[in-house]
Amino acid sequence: MRAPFRVAVIGLGNVGGALARRLVDDADRITMAAGRPIALEGIAVAHPEGRRAPAPLLLAAQLLAQRQLDAIVEVMGGLEPASTYISTALQAGRQVITANKQLVAAQGPPLACLGPLRFEASVASAIPIIETLADTLAADRIGSIMGILNGTTNSILAAMAGGASYADALADARRRGLAEADPSADVDAHDPAAKLAILAMLAFRRRIDPSQIVRVGIRDVGADQIENGRRRGFVIKLIAAATTDDGGSIQADVRPRLVPADAPMARVHGAMNAIAVDAEYAGSLLFEGPGAGPDAAASAVLADLIRAAKDVPASAGSLLATLADAPPATVFPLGPTAQYPAAS
Amino acid sequence: MRAPFRVAVIGLGNVGGALARRLVDDADRITMAAGRPIALEGIAVAHPEGRRAPAPLLLAAQLLAQRQLDAIVEVMGGLEPASTYISTALQAGRQVITANKQLVAAQGPPLACLGPLRFEASVASAIPIIETLADTLAADRIGSIMGILNGTTNSILAAMAGGASYADALADARRRGLAEADPSADVDAHDPAAKLAILAMLAFRRRIDPSQIVRVGIRDVGADQIENGRRRGFVIKLIAAATTDDGGSIQADVRPRLVPADAPMARVHGAMNAIAVDAEYAGSLLFEGPGAGPDAAASAVLADLIRAAKDVPASAGSLLATLADAPPATVFPLGPTAQYPAAS
Repeated sequence: MRAPFRVAVIGLGNVGGALARRLVDDADRITMAAGRPIALEGIAVAHPEGRRAPAPLLLAAQLLAQRQLDAIVEVMGGLEPASTYISTALQAGRQVITANKQLVAAQGPPLACLGPLRFEASVASAIPIIETLADTLAADRIGSIMGILNGTTNSILAAMAGGASYADALADARRRGLAEADPSADVDAHDPAAKLAILAMLAFRRRIDPSQIVRVGIRDVGADQIENGRRRGFVIKLIAAATTDDGGSIQADVRPRLVPADAPMARVHGAMNAIAVDAEYAGSLLFEGPGAGPDAAASAVLADLIRAAKDVPASAGSLLATLADAPPATVFPLGPTAQYPAAS
Repeated sequence: MRAPFRVAVIGLGNVGGALARRLVDDADRITMAAGRPIALEGIAVAHPEGRRAPAPLLLAAQLLAQRQLDAIVEVMGGLEPASTYISTALQAGRQVITANKQLVAAQGPPLACLGPLRFEASVASAIPIIETLADTLAADRIGSIMGILNGTTNSILAAMAGGASYADALADARRRGLAEADPSADVDAHDPAAKLAILAMLAFRRRIDPSQIVRVGIRDVGADQIENGRRRGFVIKLIAAATTDDGGSIQADVRPRLVPADAPMARVHGAMNAIAVDAEYAGSLLFEGPGAGPDAAASAVLADLIRAAKDVPASAGSLLATLADAPPATVFPLGPTAQYPAAS
């Protein structure tokens, strides 16, 4: 048996808490999967005083200064100080696993140059789409990638299709813990645009600036549009889509689209996510699963952690690193398509 | 750049031919993905004389005696001589990649004890289900796995749902190259039972003897059953399913089942495959993609080959190896369920 793989977690929110519990409760199963124990050495939080956790609580600066760590898991979110913590850890020779879509979309390529960066949890939780694009399909040619990447807006649109107003559907999503007090990241589509940027970088091997992806959120989706769509056999979904052609031009956007009621994407319910990939050799692949929830997100983090402990190469990070010096690709809006017209 | 990874292929049927072409045509892209060139050193066929191929053609015995090989790809199918070739190659210290579901189901555990064995292509072609079960979900608890694992019978059932008789639908599948002259492996469900055995071994970490899985094929599905099902809102699909419970008891079978017309499995068309996995932490995951076709199968083989060239641990093989000394689990038939009743 190899020596324990020593890990510290930055952030003790829902995902950090679920991960810490699994590392303790499922230690035997995780040891078997990783071929060595994964030891939780500490958890960094802003205010350690008086909180309880299954490992020592410290400040991030204390945790990063520890000498005996093999990897850092970042599940605090946001650009700063997460970016500083991650670059510090990578430069100190540690592996880093992150669930931070905003950070990976904006700064993934330069960060990945500093060391092994893994980010399966950053898109679609436990759906293994990052690994599939970066590893399984690494030698394929991907023409398009399309999906429902935000469970919150998918739930709101479903409630609206059931007759609720936007305001009521949003309020209900807040009550159920699906939407934040400031819902802008979801309803204005910043969240799915960041995820789409990550997927498009891996699929098309081009650097994408997430702020260049045209976003149309769901604030202006009206009951009349939903009803008109239904009469014509469509449901309205917030679709993130990106395509490329032989010339290397990239088209991508996130917008409400009319989806034929019998298409797989129309049947993605509640907070589920779905991703369709069109590859030249592998063909048309569809992945569906929970897009949110502490256990599903922690599950994706844990998969990366086990790969790190087994010294599996960080394929997705290596791929992003190759894009670090490239200028961001020009991203044209995809706009309405014959198969998926715009909803308005 | 590391030295080339030297590979030989046993079998030059549809899959072997597609793989050999990609190794030559896509050499640059494959080199980038693997971090080193993958060099096709030879192809073994029973009768090399007068055939043309993108690499030297030899007899399997000649090929296996070559000293300068890192890996062997077996795409000839069948139990023997494939089993002997694979064990010879593993014992000589080579990595082995196989698409052979029959062999992996029956002899995977003892073969995997001999060396790194990879078999992503053995189930559902380019759907990355082997890697997902053995690697991504390695530390999760999987309660059930269910799917459409045979494209030929799915196509025949679709034609019958459209009004064709079983005999006509089978004849048409033969004409389109979907069904063999002897269709028994498909229509009597040997093929999906072998695939289910592989998936269940990886999902439940128990040794499964594929011959213990109750099979009901599609020979006896009648037009009246299809019509009766339709009137009640069902379509008939050949479903492979396996479940386990807290006590470790395993239930599995392959049989025609009534699938609610609005369920995802009902919408799996033609030669597509689909697999649903229910995991305690990752949640309900659904994977869909082409279940057959030379390019899709070669794509899965190539993914394994790139992992081999990158020295990624052979997780699925290692998992099977841990089961080699265990007696096969008793497999009870699953039988009709509330969600998916038997079709007859």
